[in-house]
Amino acid sequence: MKEERIYMDWNATAPLLPAARAACLSALDLAGNPSSVHGEGRKIRTLIENARRDVAALCGAQPASVIFTSGATEAANWVLTPDFRMGKTPLTIGRLYISAIEHPAIREGGRFGKDDISEIAVTSAGTIDLAALEAALAAHDRQSGLPMVAVMLANNETGIVQPIADVSRLVKAVGGLLVVDAVQAAGRLPLSIEDLGADFLIVSSHKIGGPKGGGALVARGEILMPAALIRGGGQEKGHRSGTENPAAIAGFGAAAQAAVDGLEQRIAAVSAMRDRLEAAMIAAAPDVIIHGRDIERIGNTCFFTLPGLKSETGQIAFDLEGVALSAGSACSSGKVGQSYVLSAMGHDPRHGALRISIGPSTTSAEIDRCADVFARIAARRRLSGAAA
Amino acid sequence: MKEERIYMDWNATAPLLPAARAACLSALDLAGNPSSVHGEGRKIRTLIENARRDVAALCGAQPASVIFTSGATEAANWVLTPDFRMGKTPLTIGRLYISAIEHPAIREGGRFGKDDISEIAVTSAGTIDLAALEAALAAHDRQSGLPMVAVMLANNETGIVQPIADVSRLVKAVGGLLVVDAVQAAGRLPLSIEDLGADFLIVSSHKIGGPKGGGALVARGEILMPAALIRGGGQEKGHRSGTENPAAIAGFGAAAQAAVDGLEQRIAAVSAMRDRLEAAMIAAAPDVIIHGRDIERIGNTCFFTLPGLKSETGQIAFDLEGVALSAGSACSSGKVGQSYVLSAMGHDPRHGALRISIGPSTTSAEIDRCADVFARIAARRRLSGAAA
Repeated sequence: MKEERIYMDWNATAPLLPAARAACLSALDLAGNPSSVHGEGRKIRTLIENARRDVAALCGAQPASVIFTSGATEAANWVLTPDFRMGKTPLTIGRLYISAIEHPAIREGGRFGKDDISEIAVTSAGTIDLAALEAALAAHDRQSGLPMVAVMLANNETGIVQPIADVSRLVKAVGGLLVVDAVQAAGRLPLSIEDLGADFLIVSSHKIGGPKGGGALVARGEILMPAALIRGGGQEKGHRSGTENPAAIAGFGAAAQAAVDGLEQRIAAVSAMRDRLEAAMIAAAPDVIIHGRDIERIGNTCFFTLPGLKSETGQIAFDLEGVALSAGSACSSGKVGQSYVLSAMGHDPRHGALRISIGPSTTSAEIDRCADVFARIAARRRLSGAAA
Repeated sequence: MKEERIYMDWNATAPLLPAARAACLSALDLAGNPSSVHGEGRKIRTLIENARRDVAALCGAQPASVIFTSGATEAANWVLTPDFRMGKTPLTIGRLYISAIEHPAIREGGRFGKDDISEIAVTSAGTIDLAALEAALAAHDRQSGLPMVAVMLANNETGIVQPIADVSRLVKAVGGLLVVDAVQAAGRLPLSIEDLGADFLIVSSHKIGGPKGGGALVARGEILMPAALIRGGGQEKGHRSGTENPAAIAGFGAAAQAAVDGLEQRIAAVSAMRDRLEAAMIAAAPDVIIHGRDIERIGNTCFFTLPGLKSETGQIAFDLEGVALSAGSACSSGKVGQSYVLSAMGHDPRHGALRISIGPSTTSAEIDRCADVFARIAARRRLSGAAA
């Protein structure tokens, strides 16, 4: 009998939740353009506004401050711009400061020129170097405009949680703006734009069990907003034109609602699974390096280096054994490159690393099978190491 | 018995085709990120590449020249930019020329500054004034960069078909680039980027029976491309980053395939329905003005002014009688404004106009009922006119 495959690549994309699937279908089955004033249009508009409430609740924000986009990458490209408005008054951002471990969607810097982006180092522990950030902000040229800082809440590769409250304190001390990529944190940590002290959060539907193709930029208020990236028909109060994607938005809303319900228990259950897997991995291969194990991580992620196993080889080996995992992030179409996150943490990235990321529907049996697969691959590695 | 509602607002959004719905579901039910190299990722990648072939066939283009976006508005914002690349060599576009009847997604001009956009008048017949375009291009300042011209193939309000081959001849004579918004033409006219002489086509999924949230920029080749609008993980060969929306893309592909199959017969059948409706409207209200009736239009659209009936009043009256139609375009969230298209054609836009737009699944019975509703509303209008 062929064994079922085990999906352990939730940080690349989470399986679609049944409630999100149902919400997608409801939206697909409604004719009408949400901007149309006839009955068909108004019905589909209601779905969108309900989802806006759910995504706002996920982020501890007001519904009016949630602007839907086609995904987190679009939201990042939109908010990372020198060109802001405070109501109708233009406001210029002079420079963008990003941590060295941001996702490529942030690292590209949106509409900032290459020369207007500064990278802030991370420590060997994998968190942003707060002293380096403070020094950079102290040296910021106020004449150029305000500083903007973009730091993720949880890293996509390591799962390491960044000290956003501390970052916010530094940013607010100099009157800057703070953008927090909460894509990997949503549904895995309690999320409150107020408590984080962020001006903007970026969230993604498909990382929390919603469909791909939905995301949002969530603002603390409604007054300070980036100049629109996509202009036209004036949808989303003029912040994001283009006919809305009701299926993606309604599915995102359902997933957001599911993420909020019973979050604490789910975090505990998923972390316990992950910790059990890691204990089994260490037992099978005591030399395995689990990155960020001594520091706060989201509970679903295990990013590890197995000495002597290359990322590419390891990923294929797990795939052949029926386990889907990842060598770092899944962006850049199938490219398996070296991890810039490990490089930034001062590791030699040539050793490679693999990412196991699980979720609420991961079962104990899957954890056991994954541990077995890991043990077999680790044993083969030792054998080939001995033969070399 | 409550009568079924009649949906006659296909230019705002077309009902989802069963084949497109099925394709959406297939994509939703596949776990995996299309950029992941494991089995799950590769499976969902296949869906996307099949859809790319289908959308290419719709446009008479090569699959490699189809880049998926979140919709036509994003595609327009992307391609309308001074910043192009010919392979790796930068190429500057000095000025954007648009017709006065373009969709707001084009009228906003993407990344061109307001001062770098020229509007070209249309004639009273509703087509671009070719002499005015020729004169504008003759006066183009070559030092600023190449000229770019954006003209739609079929207008969203009137359905009037623009003389793109003539436009192309003028644009090519001065070495410019031609962008054609084919959103309303796709599935309603044969479409070939080569025959049109366009450099780029913009197409939308939900206007041809696919789901909302999908669109594409289709290029004539692969060498000359606009600088990316959305950067990050490098998806779509670096042209459009962000995790793809496989449901929207697969549904778009299915709709594109359906649009190509039996196109000629479908065009004839839809046009015959529309023409029958218009004949009934004229019989009921001989003073009705059907815009563009004497010139080539797509066969599904009837944009009319009924003297004495305001757009807002008329739209609500039809809605109450169970007919969904539109007062012009459905963008700008429920706003019913005056038609800039009619203004550009030299009509007094205060008279207002309503748009009936039908599609392949519109039935004869619906046409009859719509004609009856029209006759009732026209009669009431005369009565209230008499009472005034």
